Amino acid sequence: MNITEKILSNSVGKEVNPGDIIEVEVDLAMSHDGTSPPAIKTFEKISDCVWDNEKIAIVFDHNVPANTIGSAEFQKVARNFVKEQRITKFYSHGEGICHQVLPEMGLVEPGKIIVGADSHTCTYGAFGAFSTGMGATDMAMVYATGKTWFMVPEAFKIDVTGQLSQNVTSKDIILRIIGKIGANGASYKTTEFTGETIDNLDVSSRMTICNMAIEMGAKNGIMNLNNSTLEFLKNKTGKGKNEFKILESDKDSIYEKEFSFDITDMEPQIACPNNVDNVKNISKVEGTHIDQGFIGSCTNGRLEDLEQAAKVLKGNRVNTDVRLIISPASAEIYDKAMQKGILKTFLDSGAIICNPGCGPCLGAHMGVLSAGEVSISTTNRNFKGRMGDPESKVYLSNAGVVASSAIQGYIESPENIK
Amino acid sequence: MNITEKILSNSVGKEVNPGDIIEVEVDLAMSHDGTSPPAIKTFEKISDCVWDNEKIAIVFDHNVPANTIGSAEFQKVARNFVKEQRITKFYSHGEGICHQVLPEMGLVEPGKIIVGADSHTCTYGAFGAFSTGMGATDMAMVYATGKTWFMVPEAFKIDVTGQLSQNVTSKDIILRIIGKIGANGASYKTTEFTGETIDNLDVSSRMTICNMAIEMGAKNGIMNLNNSTLEFLKNKTGKGKNEFKILESDKDSIYEKEFSFDITDMEPQIACPNNVDNVKNISKVEGTHIDQGFIGSCTNGRLEDLEQAAKVLKGNRVNTDVRLIISPASAEIYDKAMQKGILKTFLDSGAIICNPGCGPCLGAHMGVLSAGEVSISTTNRNFKGRMGDPESKVYLSNAGVVASSAIQGYIESPENIK
Repeated sequence: MNITEKILSNSVGKEVNPGDIIEVEVDLAMSHDGTSPPAIKTFEKISDCVWDNEKIAIVFDHNVPANTIGSAEFQKVARNFVKEQRITKFYSHGEGICHQVLPEMGLVEPGKIIVGADSHTCTYGAFGAFSTGMGATDMAMVYATGKTWFMVPEAFKIDVTGQLSQNVTSKDIILRIIGKIGANGASYKTTEFTGETIDNLDVSSRMTICNMAIEMGAKNGIMNLNNSTLEFLKNKTGKGKNEFKILESDKDSIYEKEFSFDITDMEPQIACPNNVDNVKNISKVEGTHIDQGFIGSCTNGRLEDLEQAAKVLKGNRVNTDVRLIISPASAEIYDKAMQKGILKTFLDSGAIICNPGCGPCLGAHMGVLSAGEVSISTTNRNFKGRMGDPESKVYLSNAGVVASSAIQGYIESPENIK
Repeated sequence: MNITEKILSNSVGKEVNPGDIIEVEVDLAMSHDGTSPPAIKTFEKISDCVWDNEKIAIVFDHNVPANTIGSAEFQKVARNFVKEQRITKFYSHGEGICHQVLPEMGLVEPGKIIVGADSHTCTYGAFGAFSTGMGATDMAMVYATGKTWFMVPEAFKIDVTGQLSQNVTSKDIILRIIGKIGANGASYKTTEFTGETIDNLDVSSRMTICNMAIEMGAKNGIMNLNNSTLEFLKNKTGKGKNEFKILESDKDSIYEKEFSFDITDMEPQIACPNNVDNVKNISKVEGTHIDQGFIGSCTNGRLEDLEQAAKVLKGNRVNTDVRLIISPASAEIYDKAMQKGILKTFLDSGAIICNPGCGPCLGAHMGVLSAGEVSISTTNRNFKGRMGDPESKVYLSNAGVVASSAIQGYIESPENIK
């Protein structure tokens, strides 16, 4: 069995196989300011008491601080629900983006089943958890019963080997993978990332890869634990390796498909408009004019991303025709970046530092594009209109590439910046 | 003659008197992301070339980064205008709020005539300039001709004496004045602030007072220069005292009305919903529940305000039922606050630090209130719906009071916080 099958088998108490419809107990249910209110509305039709007030996490991140009366009303609905139901895990004070906040708060553990009313919930596979997104009405049932159902997914094994070149990151790995497999190529599959390259990644880089599993349609993304992840978990949960249910795929696990990627000498990868799988080597798109750069989101708003951008921006100025918007993924990251002088470098370069949140990624606020404008962004989606007007365009890349492009005013590799 | 009459007389080259209709040459014309597009639209009907591309300043501050496709479109219109007309003073990269950015950039000088398509343009009276707000269509004429007309205003002299108590600031002085004179009590008057208390204020405190002159309907607010202001001007413009046209009111100046305020032992002042002149001693409203605190804006987002708030917040936590939103008035202030550890204190207290901008003050974004919610805010207006839903409420105060109230969850003086 593979990791995902083992986690699901453990949950139901018997061996499960791809295609089985199973009901599982949820270890943690997450919703945010955008999805909590519809979940609550449905919940209130079926129950008046949540199954476990300590296993629901509500995070405000999509429209923080409230950008319209409507979003303020939505947040009020969630605040009232939190009080009425005595939800203990409530993060509404700018703590950051849900997928960053949950691990930081020590709520994510290997072997757990975590569901979230947000598609990028698959991020926690970086910690060996089975985690997946669901709709708000499904979440209502979880609020009420603590249970949900899945079809056990078939598995794709995605093996990555080779050394990352300078200025190339895990974002480039996952973009390369998505470019190959396609935006719908892994629909409802568990995508298991393996290989020496994956084993050597730091926690942030692992999160970036699992985060984007959904961008090829996957039910979840998952990885074996490594030492840096165990250290992170120790730091955040206080628990050592032996206190987790650590599961690994058996050597004879059956995969529907296996893929191999050797990323030796790979250039930075760019997902070009208007599809996440329209992935090209940066050398094919260098020189493309941009109006805006964005560094942030649950995909690439972590300290390592900010460090990478700061290294490029240090001593340089953002092009006068470009606005560079930077939003650390959490208050903890913001704090660390401030202490390390990274935010100072951003300010000195002429970047705009925003509070942690999702805003620009989905065109909600804090960097919406007008018709004809072009953004390069560390985010995860670039479909038509994702960041604003349907006639705007989004290129996806790693944080260093956004920084170097913001300096130049066109897409450019960091290696060409002094 | 008083200062304002002298500035206007100098401009037209002959002595002017209250009631005279005069045409003046404008030294600096300012518009922002909200008012530039309508000004540009009208301008384009009457001219194809601005009168002086070095005397127009355009600042993006109301909706930055763009919060909707509409605001992104507005900003594009202004960006194109700046390029076409080769406007040299363009601040679109998060530099901050126009009324803070212009003095920081050394564009404000004593004796100048500055008009802005924003009502709080009266702020620059703190530097001995005649400055006033105008509508976007009037601004279009200024863009085209460099000229505008005024009726020379009658004058109110507002004398302030006495020592400020601890936790009491120039915000409390101007609220006390507005409470007395009324929201329409100084309509189309020049309000000249005099007296030992005013003479001893720092630049930021002076700006706060002149900024709110419009809240009693004044055409402008103005003050004699003092040493701290001359030092600021030296620092920002590179010019010494003798290089400015420094004007002072003659001892025999005629004022329509004279007011005297002794602020000895004055409590912090609170402008209560829904009128800026509904001003009460804090002791009358202590205990009033709040949902949100906001520290920022052209009125009170300066370093001294942030320092005052940090002093109260240090070692304390924002109440779990309150969100405290803090937006430094400019990137320069943000930078200084970061270097001084003030932003760290804010983060540690659980406050949300936003990029410089006007957003929450006018209910545009970054802190919009829903129906029934209550905010205490360092801003300048509290009319029905100013910060969001018409059924929300806004109390205005100084920054220390916002901080202490955010800790408690209800309006409270900083003196009661450990």
